[in-house]
Amino acid sequence: MTTNETLSDRRARLMGPNVPTFYRKPVHIVRGNGVWLWDADGKRYLDCYNNVPHVGHCHPAVVKAIADQAAILNTHTRYHHELVLDYIERLTARLGHDISQCIMTCTGSEANDIALRMAQAMTGKIGVIATDNTYHGNTTATSALSSRRPPIGGYPAHVRRIPAPDHLRTPDPDGSIFAGHVAAAIADLEANGIGFSGMMLCPVFANEGIPTVSPGFFAKAEAVIRAAGGIVMCDEVQPGFGRLGSHFWGHDWLELTPDVVTCGKPMANGHPVAAVLARPDVMAAFRNAFGYFNTFGGNPVSAAACLATLQVIDDEGLQDNAARVSAYVMERLHDLRHPLLADVRGVGMFFGVEFVLDADNTPATAFVEDLVEDMVARGFILNRIGRAGNTLKIRPPLTFSRENGDLLADALQDALATAKVPA
Amino acid sequence: MTTNETLSDRRARLMGPNVPTFYRKPVHIVRGNGVWLWDADGKRYLDCYNNVPHVGHCHPAVVKAIADQAAILNTHTRYHHELVLDYIERLTARLGHDISQCIMTCTGSEANDIALRMAQAMTGKIGVIATDNTYHGNTTATSALSSRRPPIGGYPAHVRRIPAPDHLRTPDPDGSIFAGHVAAAIADLEANGIGFSGMMLCPVFANEGIPTVSPGFFAKAEAVIRAAGGIVMCDEVQPGFGRLGSHFWGHDWLELTPDVVTCGKPMANGHPVAAVLARPDVMAAFRNAFGYFNTFGGNPVSAAACLATLQVIDDEGLQDNAARVSAYVMERLHDLRHPLLADVRGVGMFFGVEFVLDADNTPATAFVEDLVEDMVARGFILNRIGRAGNTLKIRPPLTFSRENGDLLADALQDALATAKVPA
Repeated sequence: MTTNETLSDRRARLMGPNVPTFYRKPVHIVRGNGVWLWDADGKRYLDCYNNVPHVGHCHPAVVKAIADQAAILNTHTRYHHELVLDYIERLTARLGHDISQCIMTCTGSEANDIALRMAQAMTGKIGVIATDNTYHGNTTATSALSSRRPPIGGYPAHVRRIPAPDHLRTPDPDGSIFAGHVAAAIADLEANGIGFSGMMLCPVFANEGIPTVSPGFFAKAEAVIRAAGGIVMCDEVQPGFGRLGSHFWGHDWLELTPDVVTCGKPMANGHPVAAVLARPDVMAAFRNAFGYFNTFGGNPVSAAACLATLQVIDDEGLQDNAARVSAYVMERLHDLRHPLLADVRGVGMFFGVEFVLDADNTPATAFVEDLVEDMVARGFILNRIGRAGNTLKIRPPLTFSRENGDLLADALQDALATAKVPA
Repeated sequence: MTTNETLSDRRARLMGPNVPTFYRKPVHIVRGNGVWLWDADGKRYLDCYNNVPHVGHCHPAVVKAIADQAAILNTHTRYHHELVLDYIERLTARLGHDISQCIMTCTGSEANDIALRMAQAMTGKIGVIATDNTYHGNTTATSALSSRRPPIGGYPAHVRRIPAPDHLRTPDPDGSIFAGHVAAAIADLEANGIGFSGMMLCPVFANEGIPTVSPGFFAKAEAVIRAAGGIVMCDEVQPGFGRLGSHFWGHDWLELTPDVVTCGKPMANGHPVAAVLARPDVMAAFRNAFGYFNTFGGNPVSAAACLATLQVIDDEGLQDNAARVSAYVMERLHDLRHPLLADVRGVGMFFGVEFVLDADNTPATAFVEDLVEDMVARGFILNRIGRAGNTLKIRPPLTFSRENGDLLADALQDALATAKVPA
């Protein structure tokens, strides 16, 4: 190791170029507890951003479950073990829509990669639709849904990206415009001899900047998809597990009927676990069309971590907490005042605060970039989202309290009061 | 939960059809320690099969590293953290061939999925070669290398599968035949306008049944690949981390020069971790052509588990143990006597014992299937491998001892003495 090498330099030396950190001055986090993080200098941050530590950083019940099971057995699902079955039973009990079976994986990317093949197995076709500002994973197959750069060999012919909802710029209260895009994409896939297998979506359009949509928004699109014989794949990596407060799942909040549900990050509070959930007919179609085994997926330690996380959500009433606290935080965010503030929105413990430069809603990207840096300097971990990155992304652990919300809102108002407004 | 439901039934209800367990009567493992496993009835098994618990089931140093770090912080690499850098530094120090950079992932499948894109980024082409009896992962992209069933939409045009080495049936001591297959596949990819990006291989051809090949076997094929501008991707998930005894890596044992090295299962003794390692020019090509971020990849807990596993390999001299014990076990296996026994082979702590029915080397598949079941009944966890599944697969944790080898060899000779020989 070179002496005097900065962490950024060391990182570039060992990880290569173009491996971004958050923030202009990256934070060096060394400890976490609940909603709090500490950096190497002992500075404390309120975590208003991370959804992986769903029940709070280093929750002792989850840590204990991992430590205890790791000392007893950690093997794979080619042998019988009860914990993975206990977990699938408890998780599927939370789901309606006849979804009762599960494949455990290690990442949401792996889960979505399987979901896409489930759609293929159900339809015998490969065409798939997603929005044009989404992210469903980092595998070759899932990154094809969200690629902004043409991959080597060109864009895959079987993917259609349709305009994401954007209530500020393209009001579409009943989802007619969105359904029209879906219908056009299906027609194009059929016209090109590719055929249509299904659509994958995040039911709160998280990476799209959580545009304001109402329950029922997807109904017309869903009817179009059903009429064309396709399936609906809900990526619940961000909305799932009680974050929305009113509902355990995003698809129940949006009032749509998924054929496949995928989940990831928050499932085990940071332990690498994800899952694909499906109806038995969908699972059977996949299992009969494709071989699949995941060595680490559903191992006893992962299952123990998942069970503990679910138990904590229940024991600590975290879905209810998300409902109560998010309503309060939303009030506080609505009280923010700034000339560029265009929109305060959110669903459950997921908030967006959008800033624009003018009446044409020109994104105030640089302004929000500076605002994020200022907030981090003030000890608040948050970030930006949306196509132009002009929306604050606030998505704290579910243990976030009213007091935490007050700290955040007060700091945000202070930051806005001193923020430099573009000329 | 239905009462009186068997574990197999419960599993089928919750996981769906076609999710195989090992063995006709699946084992229900509840506890592990070192090379030993125990089932729910308290029966003890000698683990002669699992490579995930590389330093022994539930090694206390790895368990402690996981438990300690999980209680301190578990977040992602968008923030600075030293543990992941410490690990990459220690791991790349074990590699030659100018390979000095790393992407941490959660599974070997994710690692190989990236490796394939590195080959694309380096060459601007997408054609790829693998053997016809291999396995490099379960994502859409990696499973295309090993699919035995045509995927929905047909076999991908960019994959060429060439005959795996098989010293019993197609002797090819200097790899000329193999290199000829590689050349033909490249020519075919070029002729079809697809172009050639590289070849992915396991340097001990593990899933191919560890056919006997000698160091240098791949030299002619490598020359063909280099001449065509392709890269060599070594899947070290099975041979890596000292299993071969004489070498830390399979590619160094086979004497080939990889551009990309992937590793997985044994890295963190069961914690879901994997990695892609590459030269800086390869990493830069990938990082500039594709965006990539893995939320769980390289998190502090995974890094701590990896560091602890590497430390145990060194502290306990497990690579040396693999060299010494494997030589002894090989002697004992060579002393086995049975009319159908055709070949005893292996490299380091990875052994194959092949049985055939006749002088034409007709695979004795059913015989070996029965033999495996008998060995499991006797308390020995092992399995079958190779195209026809007529080769015993013995691949124990690296803590396997001479005494363990004696137990295995004695039981195997007893089982062979009473095994029913097909008429």
